[in-house]
Formats: sequence, C-alpha cells, structure tokens
Amino acid sequence: MAEEKLPSRKDDYAEWYNQLVIKSEMADYAPVRGCMVVRPYGWALWENIQQALDKRFKATGHVNAAFPLLIPKSFLEKEKEHVEGFSPELAIVTIGGGEVLEEPLIVRPTSETVIGYMYAKWIKSYRDLPILINQWGNVVRWELRTKLFLRTLEFYWQEGHTAHASSDEAQEETLRMLDVYADFAITEAAVPVIKGIKTENEKFAGAVQSTTIEAMMGDTRALQSGTSHFLGQNFAKAFNIQYLDMNNTLQYCWTTSWGLSTRFIGAIVMTHGDDQGLILPPRLAPIQLVIIPIYKNDSERSSVMEVVEKLKTELSDIRIKIDDRTEVTPGFKFNDWEMRGVPLRMEVGPKDVEKKSVALSRRDRPGREGKSFVPQSNIGETVKTMLADIQDSLLVKATTFRDDNIYDPKNYEEMKEILSNGWAYSWWCGKESCEIRVKEDTKATTRCIPLDQEEGSGTCIVCGEKAKKKVYFARSY
Amino acid sequence: MAEEKLPSRKDDYAEWYNQLVIKSEMADYAPVRGCMVVRPYGWALWENIQQALDKRFKATGHVNAAFPLLIPKSFLEKEKEHVEGFSPELAIVTIGGGEVLEEPLIVRPTSETVIGYMYAKWIKSYRDLPILINQWGNVVRWELRTKLFLRTLEFYWQEGHTAHASSDEAQEETLRMLDVYADFAITEAAVPVIKGIKTENEKFAGAVQSTTIEAMMGDTRALQSGTSHFLGQNFAKAFNIQYLDMNNTLQYCWTTSWGLSTRFIGAIVMTHGDDQGLILPPRLAPIQLVIIPIYKNDSERSSVMEVVEKLKTELSDIRIKIDDRTEVTPGFKFNDWEMRGVPLRMEVGPKDVEKKSVALSRRDRPGREGKSFVPQSNIGETVKTMLADIQDSLLVKATTFRDDNIYDPKNYEEMKEILSNGWAYSWWCGKESCEIRVKEDTKATTRCIPLDQEEGSGTCIVCGEKAKKKVYFARSY
Repeated sequence: MAEEKLPSRKDDYAEWYNQLVIKSEMADYAPVRGCMVVRPYGWALWENIQQALDKRFKATGHVNAAFPLLIPKSFLEKEKEHVEGFSPELAIVTIGGGEVLEEPLIVRPTSETVIGYMYAKWIKSYRDLPILINQWGNVVRWELRTKLFLRTLEFYWQEGHTAHASSDEAQEETLRMLDVYADFAITEAAVPVIKGIKTENEKFAGAVQSTTIEAMMGDTRALQSGTSHFLGQNFAKAFNIQYLDMNNTLQYCWTTSWGLSTRFIGAIVMTHGDDQGLILPPRLAPIQLVIIPIYKNDSERSSVMEVVEKLKTELSDIRIKIDDRTEVTPGFKFNDWEMRGVPLRMEVGPKDVEKKSVALSRRDRPGREGKSFVPQSNIGETVKTMLADIQDSLLVKATTFRDDNIYDPKNYEEMKEILSNGWAYSWWCGKESCEIRVKEDTKATTRCIPLDQEEGSGTCIVCGEKAKKKVYFARSY
Repeated sequence: MAEEKLPSRKDDYAEWYNQLVIKSEMADYAPVRGCMVVRPYGWALWENIQQALDKRFKATGHVNAAFPLLIPKSFLEKEKEHVEGFSPELAIVTIGGGEVLEEPLIVRPTSETVIGYMYAKWIKSYRDLPILINQWGNVVRWELRTKLFLRTLEFYWQEGHTAHASSDEAQEETLRMLDVYADFAITEAAVPVIKGIKTENEKFAGAVQSTTIEAMMGDTRALQSGTSHFLGQNFAKAFNIQYLDMNNTLQYCWTTSWGLSTRFIGAIVMTHGDDQGLILPPRLAPIQLVIIPIYKNDSERSSVMEVVEKLKTELSDIRIKIDDRTEVTPGFKFNDWEMRGVPLRMEVGPKDVEKKSVALSRRDRPGREGKSFVPQSNIGETVKTMLADIQDSLLVKATTFRDDNIYDPKNYEEMKEILSNGWAYSWWCGKESCEIRVKEDTKATTRCIPLDQEEGSGTCIVCGEKAKKKVYFARSY
C-alpha cells in the first residue's frame, strides 16, 4: 500500500504523464498494442465532458444518431485526399462469419464517407436542410506511436456532420462549432485555448479549411484539442449529396464535420496537473469534494460520522465521496486524493465536531495556504463558492502560464531557440517550404493562424518575404 | 408528400414492422449488409432508455467504463463453450496499418474475455471486490438473417461485468440485475416481461446459468429482451481472475454479466404499435406531446401562435414539439405524428383561442374516444396526468394481450396448435430431447422457466414423464 512517488514534471514530463494516468486509475493499457481501457474514474470524467458538450450541441440545434462502425473499403476511395490521409492508418476486417469477405470492410477512422452516403439517401429538397447530426462513438486509427488518451488505436469521440444549402451557412456552422468547443474548453475545463485556422499543410484530409482549438500543455508543447472542418462540396460530390433548390434545380450540398475526443482528457491532465498529480477542474471533476473522517476510537468515530452524514445531505448537489476506508491512514488518503486531483478535501475530526467547523483544503493551493476552517452551517454555499473560485483560479493560472510562454522572436535564430521550450507567434509568408524548414530545424509545426488577429503585415520569420498573417509555431503532441 | 399506408399487422406483420421502422425514421439500412443506422428519432428513444437504465445501474452501485473494441483472437479460445458459441459469428481484423497482423483481432461480439483479462490485472485482494462495472457500447456479431433493431451485425447495448468473492454474492447480483431490467421494462417501457431461467440448451455460451426477461410481441411471438448471466468461475479460471481472501489464500472470483440492447426498441415497437404506426410509452418517448397550430390566415396564425408560445413555457418539463410546417396540412401532420407514436397531440385553433381551451388527442385511443377539450389554464398538470394515464393504460393493454395469449394446453397435440399463434405454459421434464422435439414440430423453443412459479409437479407435455417445473414455450424472434 506504500505510495510510490511520481517522477517530477521537470525530471521526466513524459513519464510523469504516463505514470499519473495509470496510477490515478484514469486508464490502463489494453492487451492489444496501442489500445486503452478507460477505467471508471477516467470514464466518469469523460461522461461529464460529454454532458457539457451535448448540452451545447443540442442548444445549437443538433441531434444525435448512430452510424455504422464498418464501412466498405471502396467508400474511402471516393474522396482523393481523404483516402490518401487515412489509408495508412486503417484496421481492415477481411473475414466475417467464417468467410473471406468479397469487399473488405474498414473499421471507421472517421465517418464522413458513410454519413455522406446516408445523407445522399435522405436529402431530397432544400426543405430537408440543414441536417445537423452528431454521433458519440469510437473510431480506430492504426497509429504507430501511442500514448494513453493522446494517441491510441481506438479512441472515443463525438463527430458532428452537417449538410447545408449554401457555402456561407456551412462556413458559419464550422465557426459556430469551433466557438462551442472553445467555450466548453475555457468554461468547463479551464483550458485556455486559441481558436484558429490550420494551414493547408496541416488541415484534415478532405477539408477545404480546418479550424482548431490549440492548448498549451505544462511542458509548453501544443495540443490540438478539437477541430471543426469546412468540407466545401468535396464529400457532397464524392457521395452525390444533392438537393432540389427552390427553383427545382439540383444542387450539391455544402458539408462540415467537427470532433472532440478523449484526447481532451490528456489536455486536462497536462494543463492543470502538478508534481503531486492531477488537478481536475471542479465543473468536470467526477468527485468535487472528498470527505475524510478522522477519529481514534469508536466513540469518536460515531460522533464524527454523525456529522459527516449530516453534511452529506446538505451537499446533495455536489459530487462528493466519503472515504471511510479503515485499512489506510488519513495521511495516505490525503496523498491519494491529491494525486487523483479532487479539487477540494474536507476533514472532519472530533475537534471539528466540538467547534461545529470543518477543515477545507484546496487542491490548487498546496499546504497551509489552501487550508481553511469553516463553520458547518451553510456548508453547501461555502463549498460551492470555493469550487467556483478554484475553477476560476485554474483558468487564470493556465492562461498566465500560456501567455508567459508565447514569444515574439526577433529573428529565425531566436525562434529556433524559443521553440525548444515555448511557442513563437510570428509573421509567416504562407509558403509550405517555410513550414517544412521550421519543422526540420526544430520539430515545431504551425499550430494555427489565430482568428482574432489584427490586420497588418510584416516579414516572414523564416524567409523574410512579405507576410500578411501571424501564426503560432510550436512543438506538439 | 402523399402518405403511403402501412400494411396492416394482420396482413403482414413482418412488413408492417420493417416499413414502420423505416417510415418513422427510427432506423435505416446501412450500406453494409445487415448493419443499421439509428436515425435521430430512434437514437433519442435509445438515449431515454439509456438514462432510465443508467440511473438504476448507478443506484445499485455500478460505475461505467470503456473496454477495447478489438480483442486478440486467442482470448476467445480460453473458454471452451464461449468460443464454440461465438466463433461462427465473428468479424475479424487481419490487416492493420497496411500490414498483415501476426495475431488476428476480433471485433468484440461481447466483452467477457477482455474484461476478464483486465480484472485479473486489477484484482489483488478481497478488498478490491466486488467490482461492479458497466459499459455502454457497440458489438458486432455476423448474423445471417437480420432485421432492424432485432438482429443486426452491429448493435448498441450495455454490458455489465461484475466480479465477486463468493458464489452466493454473484448469484444475488445476477438476479438483482434481472430485477433492474424487469423494473425498467415494466415501469418505463410498459412492456410486461416475464422473468425466468433459460434452459441449459438456451443459455449464454460460457454461463453456468442464464436468466432472461421475455416479452410477447403483437404477433404473439416471444422476444428475449434482456439477459443476466451467472458465469460461475468459468471466466475466472480461463483468465486467472484471482484474489487473496482474508486468510491470505488465493481464490478464484465468481463473475456475472448482463446486457440489454437496441433490440429493446424492437420490443417497444412490437408491444405497443398498431396499424397506424408506433405508440411510444410516454416515459421514454422522445416527443411526449406534439402541438399543432391550426389557422386559415395570418391574423388567425398570430393569435394562435401567441397561445402556443404561452402554453410552451407552461409545458417546459414535458418533451414537446411544435409542428409549424406550412407545406403540409394539419391532417397530414395528424397522420404523421400518429405514425411516429407521439403519445399526445394538442390542437390549437382560433376557436380554442376564443374559448381558452385546447383539444388533446390520445394516441392510444384513436378517434373521438381519445379526444378531449381541456382548459388552457393548468395545462401542465392536465398533460402530465394524461401522459401518466396513457403509460398505465399501455401496460394494462399489453398485459391483458399477453395473458390472453398464454395457454395451458391439455396435451401435446393441443400445444402444437397453440404454438402457431400463442404461448404454451406447460410442465416440462427437463430433457433436451423434448425441447428439440417441440422445436422440430412447431419452431417454438423454451423461453424460460419462470422464477415466480409455485412448487408442484406434473407430467411433461411432450414425453409424459414426471416434471417439476413449468416452462414457457413460444416461437420467438
């Protein structure tokens, strides 16, 4: 039962992450290489993420459905860029019911193709548009280098697929969903993300334009945390998604797709975690408050537990856990729940019973600074206020860290140095050759062309030619 | 836009079902043979089913997690009966990332094996028990004869998998979850199910004992609607799921598994539906009340819509839909929503505006009998009371239909006749040979040995030998 310490983030960030995800029982390795098991603690976090997103999807007019896991291999080949992007990553079913299949089936890596096929069947006229459907499910991509949550052969996600009568409407939808993702990330997960457009080189295979929310992890690497794609008429033409317009003329639809996955759990771990373990944002934490009863004997136990039970009823709209294990010490429990990132800890001992108080310790402020003694009366409000404050503080802290690690290098030499330990926000001419050079020299890629940048121009940080846009460069996961 | 009529149930029950599921937009055929798309209306029903079940799972101490889709083929071979049962139904991935895999992977048909492997890794001592995990997900079984919802290559379900320190505890769990299923079916879906034990011949491949909830469909065929299995130590021994007991001795665990799938949507369709279409139980219906504004001109429209909007706010805790389409007539809308099984319809016209009333029509009582005019005041309560009454009436009606079609045949000749159009509840000696004879003569199988039967004995309806248990025989889906 002895707790083994995590490596510090400074010593070995990758090992800190891997061990923490396992140790906190968020996930485990499955028997098949590169696959994961999402354990109950991790899945409860995902369920809270799902709820927060699903509410936003429904509020913006979307409905859920389920499309098949298995897709005829020929479907993928109908969109040229799409097949080039995904072919190397496919898991292929060649045997079904004991027989070799005439046409192999791919396990979906994403569902544009099969959903396109169905939309072509369902859409007749402009009255059927827009179609605004989301799907919660699993997909498989045969990745070579895997990492729990960040990149696994199978992962869980939602994928929205919409079809519209006009290009403008589809582009609006693309940005609307990017806003939904950003609002979710910032409000619910306290992960400050930057909204932007992917370069041609980095866009989704088959998209006209890809947009992204990019987050900075605790080691300053970037993580693409959600994407929303304007697909133009690429898939509509490949799958004949057509409608009769008001003049009874057949037109191709304009489509979008957008997705956010269990990868986002990795974003939460690496945005907020410290050397003691996870720090989960209160709005998404499976357990918001852990109560640890402290006593030396049966008589103390009974008076303490009486108070704990009373507090429990007053905290009925908070997600709480009472840790009444007898085989471990309170000290062990403190470390354990700290490691698991529970935002708030309550201790109730005999003195608290006497004084009608409890001790509250904030996970985001270790030691004395985060500890306070509060009256038992009105405990629901006290806890709620403190959780809200923790949520806010996490966002401020992560935003400050991010902004402190974004630089505006003076020249290419300075940028190369910066990119070993931070982001560069620099003018870029738009040429792929400059992106490639940066990648070769530093392993960093363009993360996005942020949407909210001011008009202006400068000289490309790489080649010195005229540039109209600034772009974020960073090493990424 | 002309509505094509469904075939009547009497003329062609199978076609009535197939056309209804497509026409109501619950599901559609996917491009791969035997696969389905669950469309938004069907998926919304499934989401309500999920919520009703998940609440019950959590109330009985279970948590959710996610285990991998892909399972090494060798895993299946570790439990002899399990591999025999599932081998003919497998979809097998043989290529991953462009290369032929050393060991083929099966797309899970059910997850006992891979979950057993993980439990063996996680469980150390009696303190880790019981493990009570559920998973919501998709599975694939290569079925030859498929039917939307009832039997598809891929389907959606939940599968609970628990591990216990004792046989008694595992058997209690098996029956607890059967009770949860029965309570869900009866309370939420108004589907009166019979709880019982499957015969040896009909049990799950790998179980010691399988229990089931069996429902009678509108054509009197039986539908297995949920199952809960006591797996003994079969999977524990195959996967080394062991724990140290209080005396520090290594013991094998006792495990259970239980599942309910999108097949249950088929049960709802065929239990309640009539020749006009679906009748959805109010507690699960995606739309509980549809409001149809009726007007002839703009001035009527504006006064009607004003009332509709006011009623809408008063009905905020009801799942409502306002059908304000202008391209179709009210009559078309009536038929359309009737076909889609919305339990209650509200019409609001100029006269209703004047009289401060609305017209309500119950889906379960066609025509005048089900229509009433009620005051607009207190509409929330009125609607809620009526929905509750519809829910109750559906259960009464389905129970009466079921009981009217269960017979106690005097002899085998009579049983054979009965089984062409009903269930037989008869003494059975317990021998497989008698089950096989009934199946060969009538296509009917033993559905279950009901749990709540009185002690007694009789003579086997097939062979005339002494029998201690009565059993349900029926043709099934």
